[in-house]
Amino acid sequence: MASSSDYDVVIVGAGPAGLMLALWLARLKIRTKIVDKRSVKVLAGQADGVQCRTLEVAHSFGFVQRLIEEGAHINEICNWTPAADGGLERTKRMPDNEPGTSRFPHVVLTQGRIERFLLDAMRDFNGLGVDRAVAPTNMTVDPALLTDFSPSSYPVTLKLRHLSEDEATPTQVGIANGLHRSNVLSDDEADAMHGTREGGAYALAGEEETVRAKFVVGADGARSWVRKQLGLSLEGESANSLWGVLDAVVVTDFPDIRLKSSVQSHGAGSILVVPRENDLVRFYVQMGSTDPNGERFDRSSISPESIVETAQRIFQPFKLDIKHIDWWTLYEVGQRMSPQVTLDNRVFLAGDAFHTHSPKAGQGMNTSMMDSFSLGWKIAHVVQGKASPAILETYGLERLKVARELLDFDYKLSRMFAGKPITSDGKPVSHEEFKKFYESIGKWASGTAVAYLPNMLVAPEREPRLAPGLPHGQRFESHAVVALADARPWHLADRFLSDGRWRLVLFAGDVREPQQRDKLEQAAAYLDSSAGPLRTFTPADDDLDSVIEVLTVISDPRTSVEPNAFPDVLWPPKKPYGSRSYDKLYADDSSPVTPNDRGEIYKHLGIDAKTGCVVLVRPDQVVALVCSLDDIGDIGSFLSQFMVPQQQ
Amino acid sequence: MASSSDYDVVIVGAGPAGLMLALWLARLKIRTKIVDKRSVKVLAGQADGVQCRTLEVAHSFGFVQRLIEEGAHINEICNWTPAADGGLERTKRMPDNEPGTSRFPHVVLTQGRIERFLLDAMRDFNGLGVDRAVAPTNMTVDPALLTDFSPSSYPVTLKLRHLSEDEATPTQVGIANGLHRSNVLSDDEADAMHGTREGGAYALAGEEETVRAKFVVGADGARSWVRKQLGLSLEGESANSLWGVLDAVVVTDFPDIRLKSSVQSHGAGSILVVPRENDLVRFYVQMGSTDPNGERFDRSSISPESIVETAQRIFQPFKLDIKHIDWWTLYEVGQRMSPQVTLDNRVFLAGDAFHTHSPKAGQGMNTSMMDSFSLGWKIAHVVQGKASPAILETYGLERLKVARELLDFDYKLSRMFAGKPITSDGKPVSHEEFKKFYESIGKWASGTAVAYLPNMLVAPEREPRLAPGLPHGQRFESHAVVALADARPWHLADRFLSDGRWRLVLFAGDVREPQQRDKLEQAAAYLDSSAGPLRTFTPADDDLDSVIEVLTVISDPRTSVEPNAFPDVLWPPKKPYGSRSYDKLYADDSSPVTPNDRGEIYKHLGIDAKTGCVVLVRPDQVVALVCSLDDIGDIGSFLSQFMVPQQQ
Repeated sequence: MASSSDYDVVIVGAGPAGLMLALWLARLKIRTKIVDKRSVKVLAGQADGVQCRTLEVAHSFGFVQRLIEEGAHINEICNWTPAADGGLERTKRMPDNEPGTSRFPHVVLTQGRIERFLLDAMRDFNGLGVDRAVAPTNMTVDPALLTDFSPSSYPVTLKLRHLSEDEATPTQVGIANGLHRSNVLSDDEADAMHGTREGGAYALAGEEETVRAKFVVGADGARSWVRKQLGLSLEGESANSLWGVLDAVVVTDFPDIRLKSSVQSHGAGSILVVPRENDLVRFYVQMGSTDPNGERFDRSSISPESIVETAQRIFQPFKLDIKHIDWWTLYEVGQRMSPQVTLDNRVFLAGDAFHTHSPKAGQGMNTSMMDSFSLGWKIAHVVQGKASPAILETYGLERLKVARELLDFDYKLSRMFAGKPITSDGKPVSHEEFKKFYESIGKWASGTAVAYLPNMLVAPEREPRLAPGLPHGQRFESHAVVALADARPWHLADRFLSDGRWRLVLFAGDVREPQQRDKLEQAAAYLDSSAGPLRTFTPADDDLDSVIEVLTVISDPRTSVEPNAFPDVLWPPKKPYGSRSYDKLYADDSSPVTPNDRGEIYKHLGIDAKTGCVVLVRPDQVVALVCSLDDIGDIGSFLSQFMVPQQQ
Repeated sequence: MASSSDYDVVIVGAGPAGLMLALWLARLKIRTKIVDKRSVKVLAGQADGVQCRTLEVAHSFGFVQRLIEEGAHINEICNWTPAADGGLERTKRMPDNEPGTSRFPHVVLTQGRIERFLLDAMRDFNGLGVDRAVAPTNMTVDPALLTDFSPSSYPVTLKLRHLSEDEATPTQVGIANGLHRSNVLSDDEADAMHGTREGGAYALAGEEETVRAKFVVGADGARSWVRKQLGLSLEGESANSLWGVLDAVVVTDFPDIRLKSSVQSHGAGSILVVPRENDLVRFYVQMGSTDPNGERFDRSSISPESIVETAQRIFQPFKLDIKHIDWWTLYEVGQRMSPQVTLDNRVFLAGDAFHTHSPKAGQGMNTSMMDSFSLGWKIAHVVQGKASPAILETYGLERLKVARELLDFDYKLSRMFAGKPITSDGKPVSHEEFKKFYESIGKWASGTAVAYLPNMLVAPEREPRLAPGLPHGQRFESHAVVALADARPWHLADRFLSDGRWRLVLFAGDVREPQQRDKLEQAAAYLDSSAGPLRTFTPADDDLDSVIEVLTVISDPRTSVEPNAFPDVLWPPKKPYGSRSYDKLYADDSSPVTPNDRGEIYKHLGIDAKTGCVVLVRPDQVVALVCSLDDIGDIGSFLSQFMVPQQQ
């Protein structure tokens, strides 16, 4: 029915936000086109911090090992401040993340590699690739079709133009030593790149193409063309200090060059050291402050050499010998965002297209990908007829809140870094403030504490809290469990793959107790009933776990209950052979081969080991609702508010 | 100088033994050709057990995650025996491996996938692929060149013939239900396969090709053509019982269908259950015993249906509904091996070409790959002029011993399984024997306890033992450490990649003690000296860690010593920029982000935390020599016996 130029979703921009969305949609088999005006993807430099939460999501798409293997791992933060003898002293060591923050580390790796992993995963799921050297020239939305969600309705029409090589290659200023200097923009880190071309795609240069889409997503960066079509602009704090960024191979006697280190000097400014893959180190070097009257910097005087010189002054008395510069840029600190992220829930913005800030916190790429991670499954649910279009409202509610928090975080962090490190009496007070601030935001910075407020997809918190470790609106905090059937240890969230399914985790408690056993039987009977959410929201021909997967975790020892003792619906037969789903049943216990590694998930999440609870987890691993086994009917009621019944 | 038909190594046979060797040689950039007479690789069935040690080696080549992700994990062994009520009862649960056996699990996955991983890794290292549908027809060795190891000497000439499609496709007997029945051989598991062809390679059918090689390795299975050219045959125990093997998807109420389970019935025989990937289960079903006079079985009466019927009788009263048969075969138990593995250290045998046995123990594929893992680096060392050809003698010494142990193990295991489970008084005595036997060989079966006797590459054990956890001749037992420079936790053996390098691990002890500190300085001075092994055996233009990598592990807390405090040779500068090797220095400590995960490597290996020791590890992770820091000169003496000096 759909013509070859009709798509469910067209994504403009193939940076991390656009690629993460494309990956989600590829995984869920949504008809998607993704275009990018640039002829090559990023190859060096740019964003590099990959937070724990982003690794969790990468795991759910199957590519986390590539991040773990290629990235530099950040385990500790050190602060250096001016010492009384005129040198520098290490005044603090801190874990980079509070122990237990995530089952994955915090890694650092160039954006180009992360884009590579996303591209490879897209291709592996359904062959989706990026149409490069393609830019939109016109977008119209048909008001008559806005609320028409029938399969043949494509309300958005987009004109795309194939660019020539000159148009598709980012402007770069060559400088004498062979480096390419990027265009520096006041509201975003520069969009610089260099290196070899990937394939050649200019045969169609100048040609125009018209496509229709149910949804268009602008993931096209701080100067977003899509955002301009919506009449929106980035608003907020203007710049107040200038920083140089340098990725380099160095020889130094500074001992913490492979740790994330902040160095505040005797009056030469401050620097942030971030170790990188392939022996690289990234330096964020403070290069000046803006006139409070808003006068602009003279950027022309700044070169890699001047950044290096400044860095060397800050590092004194340590030697800093820069052997190779891989990439560099300049940026001015500023925090700006768009007040809206959508036009009528048909056109959306994601990533830098609606929030920009300084790169130093290592948050931008992560937040951009998490924007898409929140959006992708919702669009898919609507396209697939699983859920009401009303759920699309939650995207803006959730991600505008995060963007606001990010800008606030970045504003404070930038002030901390740019502020004078020494008070008039010579004590490093501002450093103490910095440290305190850093400790206070550690978990937020890992991405694991991002919290959405109650909305259609996040139920209001209930009292008493049956799982205090699983607040509504936050990602499911994982702990180790063991599978009943094969004694294999898993982190429970290892089972929460990004496949579009909801998860219902039955913390069944102590099922050796007859009373608790009865409760579990009753809950299972509800789930197996025609009125229950599984049979209501699952198409008749599909496996019973294909929309909502039920996972059961008992608090008893693994060997105390045989799989056969559980009601069928908790380990349902699978098509085509009717073999049982042995991967649904778990215990809060250890495996025989790792007897000392019990995860104690009940204890860590604060769940009563006798009575348990029920946890509904969204396809993006966000906790939607926690209730008691007795109240399991509330799961169905909650889902009925937005899920579309598939059976009569 | 070498013509396009001259190779350092020609490998005949691309099963697990041949591919593991090809992978080693690809990794070490040795000019290699690998041929296989079959037109397709194995696709289903065949060997499936992948022991912990094999995963360790897979890690060292970079593909362990694929095994972990695709394989079924074996964590527990259960034994079922006849119960008094006429049913079956679970009489024992055991961990599949003793806790702490390895940092990797025991997994089960079809041989076809393992071959795929090896092929992919080969291709990724240097583009090496298999020449399929190619068989050798003639092999000659020039006696005059036997001891000529000059670069232009190619003593072995091999004629290869390109096969037609008919010749290259294994004979299969189609049976009514669509299964392909393999040819069943008395001395090996059948070489059955089915499925689609990979590429087409018959353009040259009938053509002959002559190649010359420095070394030829026959990894061409139990009916090895290469072995026959050497005039060797497999000798040993003939068959005495017949087993059916079935890979199937089942529906059953037997609760341990996802555990490795042995079931001994009330007179209907016994069965071994091994859970597999993709919901498959492998059943080894006892189908009969041989007449002691050696009369052969009537195989024609055995079909998948008769195997299923037997299995169902054994499983009573549990129901066993076979929904889909993926692969099946028959085998007779027998243990046979060749008394020799080489002709003049120019032609070698590896894998089934010199040892065959029953498949039930899950050892064959592992042992075959470990044969090649022992051989590959030695050949490479000789080809590269790093070591004397005399080291090739150690291949037979090491692997014939392992083959003998394997046959002994298999003989006992087969007798245990085939023996009557019930004694005359009705007690499951033989089951107890079985259990006891299983416990006694668990570690050996994991591959981690394989022990080579002293030879040119394994020094005799010294007393007192300075690292009782690291016996000479066994693989290095890994524990977690933390890197000094970046606080990253590692299993120490994660650093022992299969890149052809030796490792010298300096357990430096407590270097805060001035006396111990002095010892470390002296050891470092020796290693940095022109007479030391690093400068003697490393080519002048190469990095100092390119032949022998020195890793230092202190027993002190990580933050007690700065990297800068270590002598240069322990973290040497790297080409081309001179940046320091921050990945050489470790502490027996935890990382700040995982403070409870200290590996306690000194304690586990029994090393004195004050005085430490020095451990020389071969490129195949085998411990060659442990000595004190005072005796570090012995490392040089040991290596001088076979390594070739590269510098004056």
